[in-house]
Amino acid sequence: MSFSVKILGSSSAAPVFNRHHSAQWLTLGERRFLIDCGEGTQTRLQKMNCKAGKISRIFISHLHGDHFFGLIGLISSMHLFRQVGELHIYGPKGLDEILKMQLKYSETLLGFDLRFHPTNPDASEVLFEDSKITVSSFPLQHRIPCTGFVFKEKPKPRRLIKDLLPRNITLQEIALLKNGQNVMKENGEIRLKNDRLTLPPSKSHSYAYCSDTKFDPSIVEHIEGVEMLYHEATFTKEFEDRAKQTFHSTAEQAGKIAQMSGVQKLLIGHFSARNKHLKPLLDEARRVFPETYLAVEGERFVLEE
Amino acid sequence: MSFSVKILGSSSAAPVFNRHHSAQWLTLGERRFLIDCGEGTQTRLQKMNCKAGKISRIFISHLHGDHFFGLIGLISSMHLFRQVGELHIYGPKGLDEILKMQLKYSETLLGFDLRFHPTNPDASEVLFEDSKITVSSFPLQHRIPCTGFVFKEKPKPRRLIKDLLPRNITLQEIALLKNGQNVMKENGEIRLKNDRLTLPPSKSHSYAYCSDTKFDPSIVEHIEGVEMLYHEATFTKEFEDRAKQTFHSTAEQAGKIAQMSGVQKLLIGHFSARNKHLKPLLDEARRVFPETYLAVEGERFVLEE
Repeated sequence: MSFSVKILGSSSAAPVFNRHHSAQWLTLGERRFLIDCGEGTQTRLQKMNCKAGKISRIFISHLHGDHFFGLIGLISSMHLFRQVGELHIYGPKGLDEILKMQLKYSETLLGFDLRFHPTNPDASEVLFEDSKITVSSFPLQHRIPCTGFVFKEKPKPRRLIKDLLPRNITLQEIALLKNGQNVMKENGEIRLKNDRLTLPPSKSHSYAYCSDTKFDPSIVEHIEGVEMLYHEATFTKEFEDRAKQTFHSTAEQAGKIAQMSGVQKLLIGHFSARNKHLKPLLDEARRVFPETYLAVEGERFVLEE
Repeated sequence: MSFSVKILGSSSAAPVFNRHHSAQWLTLGERRFLIDCGEGTQTRLQKMNCKAGKISRIFISHLHGDHFFGLIGLISSMHLFRQVGELHIYGPKGLDEILKMQLKYSETLLGFDLRFHPTNPDASEVLFEDSKITVSSFPLQHRIPCTGFVFKEKPKPRRLIKDLLPRNITLQEIALLKNGQNVMKENGEIRLKNDRLTLPPSKSHSYAYCSDTKFDPSIVEHIEGVEMLYHEATFTKEFEDRAKQTFHSTAEQAGKIAQMSGVQKLLIGHFSARNKHLKPLLDEARRVFPETYLAVEGERFVLEE
């Protein structure tokens, strides 16, 4: 299943240096999800050829403006383009009230069904699952209620080596093989030996999103072993006190979390307006965790094409 | 006094073709005002070198998102940059509630004094005046409560011809001359003849902003004789029915209002996403009112430099 993340914006607080506020476009097979939706996200989507009308679920981490001020505009434009169907929004309590009030004063009756699902800032919860993926939230320690998100492909079936299968195999027997079992004869002998007829499942991809958060090793239990991790890195180490005070992280701390969680790849973002140049942040994180990349807008990180 | 209008955005509804939502930056002497504040206005301000921190008053015409979704982001950024003092916002009832709710959930205690002044959608009112200017609102006919705005320099004093003034002239006498009066001797004779010592006042500039509105000649009484008029021209004549239905105007109708109001210059904007090219709108308005210009973002219309 295709699995990729496109960065639409990764600027913290004030949008400067042509960088924009947090927003990421996720492609998980046929699914198009959005994580966070800072001001101007609809314009970023247009510029990056991401069709807003395809978004089925939006995940908002918290109610600081740089993570959600673009949501009402995106919803309004989806309405203008007469999208039908459902749009699911997952975010902190209060977000629905904010959206509803703005729709009320503009006398907008949406052409689609907007379904709001409040997130829980105090405990990990499954937000959504279907036959192939699971999306969970978990608490982040920030100044206001905030959650991270984990997007996981479910374990996949073993892959059949079709050329080796007998012609008279039944669907039930195929299911057993895919599930890792041998197919037995009535007399208890093995009829079809699993490890001869199948290959291991292809990899199940996973991605975790952690913005905004102070340095908090307690999140490791929620993101352990994910393939790719986005972790905020608002400041360089030089501003570690400032990071602590504002419940943000340094690039080094992001690297430490990546290391402790055993992830394969780390993306850092949510860059402070102090950082005109981002290389110092990248260098700092790489000293702790070499497989670090800048989540710069326009970049696309592909786990499976 | 310097008097100019810079267009930050003039796209209606959905932002397309690299055009952005409605926002205008007004320079009136030392004053910096903003009219409407569509999503992304803070970014437009940055790109056009307009310092957001200098804005003292913001005028919001109505609560359709393309006219105010950028306001909360602009206010948040002003807060981050620790602007002190006051920011006055004039707009429809409800806008304060929307802003307050978003500030509440983000737990933002603004570093400056935000003062909200509700506009009256049913009658013309003076919103603000100081020694040099007056700002008024007047009702526009749109789908939801909406007002236009008129910015007027007050009449100026007559200009003294300094070389001709006697050395012993008093401040009181100067005030009389500036006010158009002669200075009399005690015996009733003229001591200083006004029309010999003064020149007519320099011109008082004025600008009216009308967006969004159906074609409505009843607004003429409020904008009659202004020097420059911005009037929405969402559609071409071909879509006159659509304009009527959505309480918008065509370019021809904007031209008619300009003609009926005896203005000197017409700016048209609020272009529909139907109009990739704007020349048809310009041509249509110019057939009725030749002094028409496109309020395209980046353009600056100067009444006095």
